[in-house]
Amino acid sequence: MMLAEAGVRLGVIVDRLSPETGELFPGTSDLVMHLDTDTLLSRYDAITVERDTMPDNALVNSLMASPKAAIERTMAVLPDRLTQKQLLDELGIATSPWLPGTALAQAREQWGNVVIKARRGGYDGRGTHFLRTGDAQPDADENTIVEATINFRRELSLLAARSSHGDMAFYPLVENVHRDGILNVTRAPAQQLAPQHQARAENMARALLEKLDYHGIMAIELFDCSDELLVNEISPRVHNSGHWTQEGATISQFEMHLRALTGLPLKPPEAKGFAAMRNLLGVAYDTGWLHRPGYVHWYAKEVRPGRKMGHVNFIAPDADTLARQMAAWRDVTET
Amino acid sequence: MMLAEAGVRLGVIVDRLSPETGELFPGTSDLVMHLDTDTLLSRYDAITVERDTMPDNALVNSLMASPKAAIERTMAVLPDRLTQKQLLDELGIATSPWLPGTALAQAREQWGNVVIKARRGGYDGRGTHFLRTGDAQPDADENTIVEATINFRRELSLLAARSSHGDMAFYPLVENVHRDGILNVTRAPAQQLAPQHQARAENMARALLEKLDYHGIMAIELFDCSDELLVNEISPRVHNSGHWTQEGATISQFEMHLRALTGLPLKPPEAKGFAAMRNLLGVAYDTGWLHRPGYVHWYAKEVRPGRKMGHVNFIAPDADTLARQMAAWRDVTET
Repeated sequence: MMLAEAGVRLGVIVDRLSPETGELFPGTSDLVMHLDTDTLLSRYDAITVERDTMPDNALVNSLMASPKAAIERTMAVLPDRLTQKQLLDELGIATSPWLPGTALAQAREQWGNVVIKARRGGYDGRGTHFLRTGDAQPDADENTIVEATINFRRELSLLAARSSHGDMAFYPLVENVHRDGILNVTRAPAQQLAPQHQARAENMARALLEKLDYHGIMAIELFDCSDELLVNEISPRVHNSGHWTQEGATISQFEMHLRALTGLPLKPPEAKGFAAMRNLLGVAYDTGWLHRPGYVHWYAKEVRPGRKMGHVNFIAPDADTLARQMAAWRDVTET
Repeated sequence: MMLAEAGVRLGVIVDRLSPETGELFPGTSDLVMHLDTDTLLSRYDAITVERDTMPDNALVNSLMASPKAAIERTMAVLPDRLTQKQLLDELGIATSPWLPGTALAQAREQWGNVVIKARRGGYDGRGTHFLRTGDAQPDADENTIVEATINFRRELSLLAARSSHGDMAFYPLVENVHRDGILNVTRAPAQQLAPQHQARAENMARALLEKLDYHGIMAIELFDCSDELLVNEISPRVHNSGHWTQEGATISQFEMHLRALTGLPLKPPEAKGFAAMRNLLGVAYDTGWLHRPGYVHWYAKEVRPGRKMGHVNFIAPDADTLARQMAAWRDVTET
């Protein structure tokens, strides 16, 4: 929806397709159409993906095999944490130490506390399992990887874009605060940042984007270990930690993604001030929110516990004003 | 399109209907669907109009007769300049002196230079005809009105909104600069404004919105005669002179219109700085524009001389920076 929204100013029309059902949602509407695969392939100039994994069916396979879906090489590597880690190692990009799930015993011996992660499909903390020294030993599982637990100061993320012409653009590093494994708040730009971190993160991104010949926005989650910066996870799509850019930057991540996919100029994005994004998790809509400070984005989805129902963006000229705006939302919590 | 774009953050879906052909364009898409009139009337919570006149056909008549189209009373009065003028007179709202087109001779005797305007369908300077003392006398025409020409300093406009709950919100007065009768540039807020003008314009708007029991955004074009403020024209819809609000105000006119139509809270809009909007008239798209300062909004329509092809919004912390940004676009003119 937010990509379709961002397309309007560019004169770029974005329709949405369910890869499971083949239902086509035109633009920002909830009306449904069905077009056959050939029509889909001829009608659109570019095909993009806004989730981490895709079903394996004839529709998806046809679309992904098209040169209009430039994401094929990326989808062959990144959705599997094992091949993602191998790529990071190959490029010499710092990441938390890891071993394949079959080497669980060796990993515990080497690092003590470890975290087991599903190779595929983990999202918002799902598929992640912490093991402390002394915990019972589960069966080694080739569908997982094992990582050393990391002592980090905080989680950061970088949004990077690369266009079909090879141009690149980077957003400032942001700080992410999670609640129960789900992103709760992003602050942008990240404050008290070690001076070398921005350039270091951009270099990591540059290597990844070029290696994958990637077009579009990529989000790179990083552990800030003060001196060190370790890649935690890479998402080849627009990302929740970039939602602040809608009002907080001169170009939103959604617009940047479309520019990159369609070969339009990228132009370096600038932060407009002190920004933050807060997710609205598992709450029902309250129209009274529209009186409050901040920019509400509501997804109009059915309420479910912990579900991302919408988000609020805050922009302020200074950190104190930002804190005051956010404080006006303190009472809004999942009931 | 820009209403559909603005609906996303509100969780409000906007589909677009051609009143001539009955083609339904879902959301921001160019895909076409057809729904019968009963389905249209049951699917949507509100029906709005984004042009000055509507064809007289069964589809339009059915939709406009629905209580969901709260604009019926307004459309019975405003699109006809004669009844519009009568309403202004009835409410005691200052406007340029006028007479029905049948009283042309009397008007010329009384005021000398006059302007003849078509009662219906005039737009962007079309249907307007200036008559100086000494010009040949055309036939009196009951489909026109005659106005005294006014010595004004500049044209201003006010955007005002009223919700289905009766709440109202007003934008700051803006200054409009035309070229060949077509809006070229809007500057917001208007500078060097007489201190009483904002309140005076809001009072005029309040009287009009309440009298018409109007829901949505209304644009009121005014002649700034230094001491006096005269209403020139009223448009019951989102308006080109309000496009600056997309990046220039905390709530865009498009979002405000949807809030007003759907009974959501209005919240007073604030200008974010010194803003301007420049129309892109009759020019072909140049992707290089995306490198320039300013926010390009491109409508992806077929190029025609003088046609509004898109617009650029500028926001700056001060007037000098704004002028510099706009100067970077000086070379872009219709060829």
